[in-house]
Amino acid sequence: MSANIAASVCTMCKRKKSFFFRPYSGERLCKKCFSESIEAKVRASIAKYRMFNFHDKIAVAVSGGKDSISLLHILAKMERLHPKASLVAVTVDEGIEGYRDEALAIAAANCRKLRIDHHMVSFKELYNFTLDEIVARAQRKGERELTSCAYCGVLRRRALNITARDVGADKIATAHTLDDEVQTILLNIFRGDVLRLAREKPVTDEVHPRFVRRVKPFCEIPERESALYAYIKKIKFQDAPCPYASEALRNDLRAMLNRMEENHAGTKFTVFKSIERIRPALDEIAKKAPFTECIECGEPASSDLCRACELLRQNS
Amino acid sequence: MSANIAASVCTMCKRKKSFFFRPYSGERLCKKCFSESIEAKVRASIAKYRMFNFHDKIAVAVSGGKDSISLLHILAKMERLHPKASLVAVTVDEGIEGYRDEALAIAAANCRKLRIDHHMVSFKELYNFTLDEIVARAQRKGERELTSCAYCGVLRRRALNITARDVGADKIATAHTLDDEVQTILLNIFRGDVLRLAREKPVTDEVHPRFVRRVKPFCEIPERESALYAYIKKIKFQDAPCPYASEALRNDLRAMLNRMEENHAGTKFTVFKSIERIRPALDEIAKKAPFTECIECGEPASSDLCRACELLRQNS
Repeated sequence: MSANIAASVCTMCKRKKSFFFRPYSGERLCKKCFSESIEAKVRASIAKYRMFNFHDKIAVAVSGGKDSISLLHILAKMERLHPKASLVAVTVDEGIEGYRDEALAIAAANCRKLRIDHHMVSFKELYNFTLDEIVARAQRKGERELTSCAYCGVLRRRALNITARDVGADKIATAHTLDDEVQTILLNIFRGDVLRLAREKPVTDEVHPRFVRRVKPFCEIPERESALYAYIKKIKFQDAPCPYASEALRNDLRAMLNRMEENHAGTKFTVFKSIERIRPALDEIAKKAPFTECIECGEPASSDLCRACELLRQNS
Repeated sequence: MSANIAASVCTMCKRKKSFFFRPYSGERLCKKCFSESIEAKVRASIAKYRMFNFHDKIAVAVSGGKDSISLLHILAKMERLHPKASLVAVTVDEGIEGYRDEALAIAAANCRKLRIDHHMVSFKELYNFTLDEIVARAQRKGERELTSCAYCGVLRRRALNITARDVGADKIATAHTLDDEVQTILLNIFRGDVLRLAREKPVTDEVHPRFVRRVKPFCEIPERESALYAYIKKIKFQDAPCPYASEALRNDLRAMLNRMEENHAGTKFTVFKSIERIRPALDEIAKKAPFTECIECGEPASSDLCRACELLRQNS
């Protein structure tokens, strides 16, 4: 009986009723303590990986989904304590009919509410094609190897880099969660892409003057907890999933990791930490593959033609 | 119709009927070409990782299961072409009642047939306890953290090292398959054990004069193909699984990897190769953790007390 009563009380404040159990730490938290724990974890990750300098202008990549809107709210709260830092939001309109418009409106509404400058950029204006047009064209050409995610990912990262640089941002903050990071780690191992394994990390290296460094303040927040944060804070976000099917291998890895996490709580953190422990070794690999400029667009690239121009050329 | 006929013919000899399809290569093979392909792959792995020198005395670890008996047959066949090299077999009797006796008899019969010296060593004579006794004692003490596999793995490796050294072997060859290797890679990542990730490899480093280097000629042979080889060659092996339940995390990883392999043929090879590609970096990690000698038994150890003595002490 007493164990049951104890179990229903927040293990942090020891007063309020708990509503969330964190299996990997054993904590039972009330809504307030849960939200505070998320904000504290984000601050800790930012400090640990030295994500920001005090005077940074930070471009937050805001899609309109739960993770990016939660990140925007948390960074806005932190920014008030750092008067020399500043925030802008950047939203990329990939051009996905019937899906993106709602997200754009939600992103804009949140920025207005938080009084954050909001910059929008579209695939159409940058590349002359929407994602819908690119995917339709690829399908007509019988292109089977590349998923819509492959196009979208490369072109979105490029769009973010250009826009962040244009507005004079020092860093791009993205809302990749622990789940995203661990999926990407395994995806790269399962695909044999060791260079990407080496390059993807909480703070990307300073590889080229035209490359804006990306930081991931949610890299140690499980996706489930990022969603819960948005729910508790009554943040408005887009709930509908992207109409394009995501990558098969990533889907399999996501399902597998969730099963593993259920059977062995803390698995996702352990995988993340394993890779961070071999990080110095991976950095050596990354160093040996320097960046150059794309001969077509002048953007930072790993080879003569950047991946974005390569995809757009294949598709033209 | 013609496609069906083509599909049923061996893609290697183009004459015999195929009986096996290799999804990751697209090959369809007859029994003879399949067996030859396994032997060729083992020779290729041995050459690639420089597993042996011409004059090596090789101690093959033979449990009596399909993988180790197949390895013994393949190495015996190769040895005939290398007169300066020699083979012995080493079997460890862990002391598992109703299970090990059959395997020991099978191992001995195979060695007699192949005219290979067979050395047996038991946990009882080395450690004064059988595995059954160790596990029973651990259960009585309420030890929950360690599975029987944890005891068995450490003590078996120690037994192999002592016996191989006693018979003057230069190398220990174990029959770990591609499946075992990839499971172990992920197990170490999922457990956060980066040092073991660094130390486990196709050929272990020369870490200590009392440590006999271990090589894994089957590290690029899928378990399924090692089993098929034994079946085709009509090799006698023990089929019954160990009565002790194996590690939960390894079981989960095995199931996951088999699912992934089914959906994305070649996955196991890709994971194996990813890690081999970061091998130079991992070697740097391994180098920073030198070996010393156990203060209790004098065997090579990572810390003052070796893992075997630590386990035996906990259990006494």
